[in-house]
Amino acid sequence: MAKRVVIIGGNAAGMSAAMQARRLNRDLEIKVFEKGHHVSYASCGLPYFVAKMVEKIDSLVVRDVSEFKSKGVDVEIRTEVKEIDAGNRTVLVENLDDGRVWREGWDDLLISTGALPIRPDIDGIDAEGVFVIKDLEDGIRIRDYLERKSPRSCVIVGGGYIGIEMAEAFLRWDLDITIVDMLPQVMGTIDSDMAKQIEQAMRAEGIDLVLGEKLIGFEVKRGAVEAVVTENSEIAAQLVLVAIGIRPNTKLAKSAGIPLGYKEAIRIDRHCSTGIDGVWAAGDCAESIHLVTGKPTWIALGTVANKQGRVAGINISGGDASFPGVVGTAITKFLDLEIARTGLSEKELVDNKIEFASARIDGHTLAGYYPGTSSISVKLFAEVKTGKLVGGQIVGGPGSAKRIDVIATALHAGLTVRDLMYLDLSYAPPFSPTWDPIQTAARQLAKSF
Amino acid sequence: MAKRVVIIGGNAAGMSAAMQARRLNRDLEIKVFEKGHHVSYASCGLPYFVAKMVEKIDSLVVRDVSEFKSKGVDVEIRTEVKEIDAGNRTVLVENLDDGRVWREGWDDLLISTGALPIRPDIDGIDAEGVFVIKDLEDGIRIRDYLERKSPRSCVIVGGGYIGIEMAEAFLRWDLDITIVDMLPQVMGTIDSDMAKQIEQAMRAEGIDLVLGEKLIGFEVKRGAVEAVVTENSEIAAQLVLVAIGIRPNTKLAKSAGIPLGYKEAIRIDRHCSTGIDGVWAAGDCAESIHLVTGKPTWIALGTVANKQGRVAGINISGGDASFPGVVGTAITKFLDLEIARTGLSEKELVDNKIEFASARIDGHTLAGYYPGTSSISVKLFAEVKTGKLVGGQIVGGPGSAKRIDVIATALHAGLTVRDLMYLDLSYAPPFSPTWDPIQTAARQLAKSF
Repeated sequence: MAKRVVIIGGNAAGMSAAMQARRLNRDLEIKVFEKGHHVSYASCGLPYFVAKMVEKIDSLVVRDVSEFKSKGVDVEIRTEVKEIDAGNRTVLVENLDDGRVWREGWDDLLISTGALPIRPDIDGIDAEGVFVIKDLEDGIRIRDYLERKSPRSCVIVGGGYIGIEMAEAFLRWDLDITIVDMLPQVMGTIDSDMAKQIEQAMRAEGIDLVLGEKLIGFEVKRGAVEAVVTENSEIAAQLVLVAIGIRPNTKLAKSAGIPLGYKEAIRIDRHCSTGIDGVWAAGDCAESIHLVTGKPTWIALGTVANKQGRVAGINISGGDASFPGVVGTAITKFLDLEIARTGLSEKELVDNKIEFASARIDGHTLAGYYPGTSSISVKLFAEVKTGKLVGGQIVGGPGSAKRIDVIATALHAGLTVRDLMYLDLSYAPPFSPTWDPIQTAARQLAKSF
Repeated sequence: MAKRVVIIGGNAAGMSAAMQARRLNRDLEIKVFEKGHHVSYASCGLPYFVAKMVEKIDSLVVRDVSEFKSKGVDVEIRTEVKEIDAGNRTVLVENLDDGRVWREGWDDLLISTGALPIRPDIDGIDAEGVFVIKDLEDGIRIRDYLERKSPRSCVIVGGGYIGIEMAEAFLRWDLDITIVDMLPQVMGTIDSDMAKQIEQAMRAEGIDLVLGEKLIGFEVKRGAVEAVVTENSEIAAQLVLVAIGIRPNTKLAKSAGIPLGYKEAIRIDRHCSTGIDGVWAAGDCAESIHLVTGKPTWIALGTVANKQGRVAGINISGGDASFPGVVGTAITKFLDLEIARTGLSEKELVDNKIEFASARIDGHTLAGYYPGTSSISVKLFAEVKTGKLVGGQIVGGPGSAKRIDVIATALHAGLTVRDLMYLDLSYAPPFSPTWDPIQTAARQLAKSF
């Protein structure tokens, strides 16, 4: 009898796994159960859909169900797994359209249930005009609301990646925008001196920043939101986006007795095994190893989900793959201002009790005389004991942020500041100063060693 | 008595060395002799000066003589070193303006005499309208000629980096352009399949490519060039740029008995020592170690010159620095088409008898649905025996070429294809597809391992 594979959740990790397993082992019977209407979509593209920079929501769907079926991956949408029975190797499944419920057996189970947006338990959170953004339906709802209701002002609760990207989107709708964050800065994953530049750029666009204040509640009238209440302010808003973070969607796994780890993400090893025979996990619901600290971490990003899914799929097919881990790379932009980070931030270094030295330089993206050159700030961290790089941050104009990949690669390889300084990076006036700004920062930092 | 340092040649390597030595050791007496009118200038910017994208030639001068003097580095321009006496530790110097000749003693000598453009010994090479481009004076002469003579057509002999950058410059002057190269492709440092895209882009701009044909001679009338003669063609041109390469400027070193190595570049170790006590060399006149082959190579680039100069300066000051070597990274563009390479090309792999596997992918620079995404081709090479990366090439639209730095970093660190595939590179729709094109290429290549 063919080996049966069940995959719970049909986004990046689940579908990558399905495709790898199918490609490597034609004998598997592969079933994917997806609760929503779509599989394999680019949720990172949602801000640009809301911004109308991407016209059709279908553009965000990487592959549709029929395409997977034609490749021999049986996908059922609107079908929710209600229970995992790891002992008897079954899942209890419900078709959300017709209510039909049945048990499905498996030899291998992949849990790729993703993450859920955090919705604070506050009165008014369910009012009309209050949104989170995580899946395609959320994006459709927000754009539809913007079109139908023409709100004049909005509040974004949370000044992280999603908050910043959605602020850009709302600017395109000419909304008055306020960002509320309980931290004293936007983008808590980078240091405050670097975040200052983002705050300046946002204020220059007329965005109000209410920092260091907690969300207390909502003013709601006839079921629709009218204002956001913080510790010290009440801010009128016909649209509120709550973007205070996400959490691993692991209730199902927990109920089945599958061990959870960091931040309640499913504990997995480098092979994406949960430690329970035949049960795998990958993507936003699962842990990764942080290659700088060596400890488990939880990073919910499409890149990691794709890679873990790939590894899980290969292993399920009978192959042998392992996912080394992450270094915490992330990138975004606000209009023309690019933002990137990798490794550990100052706060994370302190939290991890790593003695570090740091340097920051403010330079140019291109040769100083080349038309279109713009400013760039690079901050680097190295461990005092070893001279090894442990983190980096970049904020600057066009062409700045993708440079973070060099630092990410250096972190993977365990390079020192001195190694970075002497790397043979590319130079020509339309691309870089003679010393790439990353290497200028490395030169600065090398003085501490 | 203060230790006396003499530096021959005041461009990237020489001036970097001077500044490092000065910073680290206030007691040194540092003299720089520069034959030309300027020190520390960006010769890589010359095509953009000729293109009038950079208005003033002074913009290409990084620091002028007075700035160095104010920092305690004694620079003499228009002063040529005619002879090195390594035994008696002197140089023979001539002031080119007043003809004065004298001997200068040194305790440490840095040879940073740079490179010279290759001028083939062909009748007509000295005719009016025939140019090479290496230093500021060359750039001024060409732009002046374009302004005064308004040539209608030009021939560029040599389709390498300089040829391609100058073709872009001449397009801005509305010249009819022909590029002649003895190779069957432009850009001989990348593989022919990748170079095809550059050739297409050039032809699309109306540039004639005469490939696989040697330069035979020039038609000259009343002292001015009228045409370029190749094996099969005669091409009318009122302006000819000969850009067939450069060679290390090491006649002076050779006469002094200082050992030369690869391509007649000065042999140096990682400390930039020539092996002769107190005699150092750095920059375009000197060798480097190629970190992929482990063998000496010669790469005349500002980045290498800056780094070697820095290392030489530190060592001259009494410090201890070493330059690990190069991986052969280079980058350029033709209009919007970006071009980059690092490590070994197919030809170089064959020449070095390295058994390799390769993969090439054609993808997108950004998420496929994101506005402004453009095509990108990435080619990767790995050694069959070890799986280690040994080279990479990129050709594509805006945002393509700087990605080569990740491959360059991977080459420094000795990463394998599999390492590259699982690197935590940055992703957001405005910057990259979920799998960076480099990693898509790595996935493709990993199938061979």
